[in-house]
Amino acid sequence: MTRRMLFNAFQMNCVTHQSPGLWTRDDDQTTRYKELDYWLDYARLVERGCFDAVFLADVVGTYDVYGGNREAALRSAAQTPVNDPMLVIPAMATVTRHLGFGVTSAMLQYHPYTFARQMSTLDHLTKGRIGWNVVTGYLDSAARAYGLEALPEHDQRYEIADEYASLCYRLWEDSWAEDAVRADRKSGVYTDPSRVRDIDHDGRYYRVHGCHVSEPSPQRTPVLFQAGSSARGTDFAARHAECVFVIGSKPHVAGDYARTVREKAVAAGRRGEDVAVFAYMKVVVGGTEAEAKRKYDDLFESVDIDGALALMCGWSGMDLSTVAMDQPIEYIETNAIRTFLHSFTAGDPSRVWTPRDIARYCGIGGAGPVLVGTPEQLADQLEDWIAAGVDGFNLAHTVLPGGLEDFIDGVVPVLQSRGRMQREYQPGTLREKLFGHARVQAPHPAATCRRPWG
Amino acid sequence: MTRRMLFNAFQMNCVTHQSPGLWTRDDDQTTRYKELDYWLDYARLVERGCFDAVFLADVVGTYDVYGGNREAALRSAAQTPVNDPMLVIPAMATVTRHLGFGVTSAMLQYHPYTFARQMSTLDHLTKGRIGWNVVTGYLDSAARAYGLEALPEHDQRYEIADEYASLCYRLWEDSWAEDAVRADRKSGVYTDPSRVRDIDHDGRYYRVHGCHVSEPSPQRTPVLFQAGSSARGTDFAARHAECVFVIGSKPHVAGDYARTVREKAVAAGRRGEDVAVFAYMKVVVGGTEAEAKRKYDDLFESVDIDGALALMCGWSGMDLSTVAMDQPIEYIETNAIRTFLHSFTAGDPSRVWTPRDIARYCGIGGAGPVLVGTPEQLADQLEDWIAAGVDGFNLAHTVLPGGLEDFIDGVVPVLQSRGRMQREYQPGTLREKLFGHARVQAPHPAATCRRPWG
Repeated sequence: MTRRMLFNAFQMNCVTHQSPGLWTRDDDQTTRYKELDYWLDYARLVERGCFDAVFLADVVGTYDVYGGNREAALRSAAQTPVNDPMLVIPAMATVTRHLGFGVTSAMLQYHPYTFARQMSTLDHLTKGRIGWNVVTGYLDSAARAYGLEALPEHDQRYEIADEYASLCYRLWEDSWAEDAVRADRKSGVYTDPSRVRDIDHDGRYYRVHGCHVSEPSPQRTPVLFQAGSSARGTDFAARHAECVFVIGSKPHVAGDYARTVREKAVAAGRRGEDVAVFAYMKVVVGGTEAEAKRKYDDLFESVDIDGALALMCGWSGMDLSTVAMDQPIEYIETNAIRTFLHSFTAGDPSRVWTPRDIARYCGIGGAGPVLVGTPEQLADQLEDWIAAGVDGFNLAHTVLPGGLEDFIDGVVPVLQSRGRMQREYQPGTLREKLFGHARVQAPHPAATCRRPWG
Repeated sequence: MTRRMLFNAFQMNCVTHQSPGLWTRDDDQTTRYKELDYWLDYARLVERGCFDAVFLADVVGTYDVYGGNREAALRSAAQTPVNDPMLVIPAMATVTRHLGFGVTSAMLQYHPYTFARQMSTLDHLTKGRIGWNVVTGYLDSAARAYGLEALPEHDQRYEIADEYASLCYRLWEDSWAEDAVRADRKSGVYTDPSRVRDIDHDGRYYRVHGCHVSEPSPQRTPVLFQAGSSARGTDFAARHAECVFVIGSKPHVAGDYARTVREKAVAAGRRGEDVAVFAYMKVVVGGTEAEAKRKYDDLFESVDIDGALALMCGWSGMDLSTVAMDQPIEYIETNAIRTFLHSFTAGDPSRVWTPRDIARYCGIGGAGPVLVGTPEQLADQLEDWIAAGVDGFNLAHTVLPGGLEDFIDGVVPVLQSRGRMQREYQPGTLREKLFGHARVQAPHPAATCRRPWG
């Protein structure tokens, strides 16, 4: 049997998520991100397309690496201003029944005790449709906003994330017994106090003494997303993630990453299929190939080069303003940008990149590839990606809603007719829909943290 | 002209907000607090009643003062379990157009940088319908949950709140100029970077270096609610609050409090009418006085005495389990319960109270009075409260939705026919509806923190 492709719609509570400049077009509505109706329409559209989830990115801080200031980011609305992602979920949940919602949250933002309750609340309100994208942060401006001098160094950030997640697991999984809530009108007992216990955690970074204050939600632990591509990042993913997000310019780049994570997961005692790999993707759809290419060229005209560089420099930590726009970047393999730009060069290691190339690539592609073609051509290409080893896609948009509508009305039916996409949703929570089981299973740390009840 | 009464519907994201035991009744639906539809139905009902806002209480920690443990609270679902209050607002906003939403947030829960963005996001999504109830916390169990040994002492909590609020004001009011957002498709400029500036705050309790990451929302600073009744609490209210919440057993108790706060506000340079005072209220409505009394007696049958004591002991900090149920509490004027129970004794200083009396009073009344009668009788009594000096009410429910429907279908029309309640909403944001102006005005600290732009 052909396995179905998984799809998340990749989105962010801001104007410019991945394509700086496109907001200036008459056919784009992303400047409406502050309006409830914008989110309701978006959710309805994505659920009409039978996507698994909306995956909400987030960032703390502003993109101030390029040129050493945030001017380009502000001017182009490149992920700044950015509103809270969690707060659009309850609204979107009111107009959908099955769509999942993955939300990005950086450890800096919330104390785990606060965060655990937020996730439980969302999981209750959506009847188990919530995922959490664990993020360690990458902008020093974020650290300064929270009163630190700079972010902890890279590997230490994962050490903190490990403690943060493990603490949340204990609140979600180990504090309330399955039968703690009786809600028995006759006896007047809502909760059996003997079935609720404290989490006593005195860690290196966090300290919590108390019980979880939310009763168990349908999934307890939300579906766990993660996106680290470094060695430490894939270690973390192999241990914690159920869904991982990868950026690769070509199928084999993403596929290699998927294999690495699965191998590490297996080494950690999990099964390879316990991890679903989503590749970053963006598409431009046309009725003919020529029309699709015209559309692409037309979109390309609107790209904001400065905005694209602001994003890329923030992601990579490298200030490309020190390189002339058309000068080849020769030292790409030797500095911080390497990890991030691996996806570019791995596709063709001999290729020379200039800041302008990167900006253009980012402008329309954001952090990853753009596929251009007819619905059939795109379906073929997406199948190539799946064949290379990924399970599905985090689909970013070009213009909204048109770019996404083109995909949903054009490509989705083709994939459905090939048996590659679901025509309707399966019942159950997000985890049940993705993996067939309701709760995180051993040896995942969210499962093994459950102590027996007397 | 008769001034209209203000009404908030007082609610909490949990089973038992103010009346332990009533959830066990067949006509009560509060156990549905985890469902989106429960909140949508609730919001529609409250807006049908032309209330100004839903006022969402919250608590961090569990009620473990009574008997030195949380057993009674858990058994009766007395504010435990409790879900996040902020996350039900976007859902309620989708089915209402005018209703405001006041949300309680304790300083322990969120770093101000995180919190400021959450409020801005909500204010955007609701087009300016948001209020913030500034809370300092009162349960040591909350402090332990966040890794502290105990809460800071009472006056220091207000010192922290003062810094917390002032820092939020700067993020909301002083970081983005009024004309910072251009959203100009032609020039491609979304934000003018020269009109966004950092907040550099190195305070005693918080440190923030960065700009606010949300663009200015309709109200910028949400409408500010506060509920402290101590000397330090009323000082804080006089300086910060636009709406204050008071609990008094009799009109003159609440009226005295209102006068105190207004006098202090005037001493701080504000106008008395800059502060709207809401009295805690609960009603039982009947077609006849006899029917109302029967209803009250019937509700009273369902009161959970232990749950009521769990709440009262948590609020007051005094463990009443050390006093026999029917033993008069003689030392009420000399300990911590005094501040809180002022509302009881001030109505009749000679009255003797036993734990059982308190529990019964709390059980049906929660923290305050219950009025029982026909719509006309209740309207008369509410007018007496207004005459004593308050501006409106935070109306808690008995059973939901019935208790609230009785009020909205019975008492509201009487108040409307007397010109005492609005029949339809005024246009504008919550602050415009309540006070006639869009932004906080000098000498309020949220206004005076605005530095000029070059």
